[in-house]
Amino acid sequence: MASSKEEVTLLGAKESPFVCRVKIALNLKGVEYKYVEEDLLNKSELLLKYNPIYKKVPVFVHNGKPIAESLLIVEYIDDAWKHNPILPSDPYQRALARFWSKFIDDKVVVPARKAVFTVDEKEREENAEESLKGLQFLENEIKDKKFFGGEEIGLVDIAAVFIAFWIPMFQQIAGLELFTSHKFPKLYKWGQELINHPVVKESLPPRDPTFAFFKGRYESLFASK
Amino acid sequence: MASSKEEVTLLGAKESPFVCRVKIALNLKGVEYKYVEEDLLNKSELLLKYNPIYKKVPVFVHNGKPIAESLLIVEYIDDAWKHNPILPSDPYQRALARFWSKFIDDKVVVPARKAVFTVDEKEREENAEESLKGLQFLENEIKDKKFFGGEEIGLVDIAAVFIAFWIPMFQQIAGLELFTSHKFPKLYKWGQELINHPVVKESLPPRDPTFAFFKGRYESLFASK
Repeated sequence: MASSKEEVTLLGAKESPFVCRVKIALNLKGVEYKYVEEDLLNKSELLLKYNPIYKKVPVFVHNGKPIAESLLIVEYIDDAWKHNPILPSDPYQRALARFWSKFIDDKVVVPARKAVFTVDEKEREENAEESLKGLQFLENEIKDKKFFGGEEIGLVDIAAVFIAFWIPMFQQIAGLELFTSHKFPKLYKWGQELINHPVVKESLPPRDPTFAFFKGRYESLFASK
Repeated sequence: MASSKEEVTLLGAKESPFVCRVKIALNLKGVEYKYVEEDLLNKSELLLKYNPIYKKVPVFVHNGKPIAESLLIVEYIDDAWKHNPILPSDPYQRALARFWSKFIDDKVVVPARKAVFTVDEKEREENAEESLKGLQFLENEIKDKKFFGGEEIGLVDIAAVFIAFWIPMFQQIAGLELFTSHKFPKLYKWGQELINHPVVKESLPPRDPTFAFFKGRYESLFASK
């Protein structure tokens, strides 16, 4: 159990949807933390020490003990600070929340990134198709719930912030239609609820510089083609 | 909490390392269950109904409620039947157990399968390299512990049964050297402990027909090249 004498540090990069997940979890819990911005072109000693395997952000450090992988960090935060629960208490509902958050990573985040940040056209198209399929499963799953977690934000909503905030930027940059109110009306409505939730709002990066960052990345990918 | 009037069903395929994970968890807990062997070339209505997204085994059904994804099933079993714990109780140790079991899937299971069951030679070689790197991280991690879980089998050991039992068959079939006592002495010793543990032993499929099954799959892959 967490005490009041905590050292809580997050190594992040402000544009990262994975880092944003951890920020939402910390802000939902009201946990104060030190944020360290990493330069991913020149990774710090601290990042390499704490995440020698993947060398990626986010890394969460609690009283000197590091954890990598955003969904595992969110689940750890929920284990360590019990108030404002992020996962349901019922074992079956917990399993479903883990299932859908893993689904989002495997079937939406991975293909949606490849649909934009890949040079090969066939690969882009295949990945766009796959992410549309993934989004359709989520459209069927959200039904008329406010959030995947019900009335409150839960693990699946946190995992899916990528869909609500990042996919709209990515599709605009690449001139694609992935996540639109026309294709996915219920999921789109959920996305609007999510990004306007006060805790999510304070956790998101500002849109314009984030858009510019990814646009730069996109253009340099095709410039070097 | 689980009561004595349980309906517990596992849809599986006997050669599958992922199904074996669930069997180990159930046998560690001493949970009685009904096992249904699936014909993966002719999937049952039940499998398609319970796992419409991935259409894969294992599927675990507890009192009519289905769960897919082997590691999530193992964690659910540990949540639903509290005795003989599979995950540590400490939040940080839980996070590490989840980290390493996900690492095993991403950095060993996926590349080791591709290193064998892929036609393209370059892709085979790259994946063999990647699985060796993954195994090296585990060699460093096991140190002189009996199991990853300590004195008892835990989530990481269950995830890693693929390494102890399946990789030796796969490398023999493909004429590769991935997991040998020479390359990974500590991990090899761990693997021997694991497959000789009575609960694991009763959960593993018989070696000879399993070997023949994968040899057949390997040969048909190259016959149709």
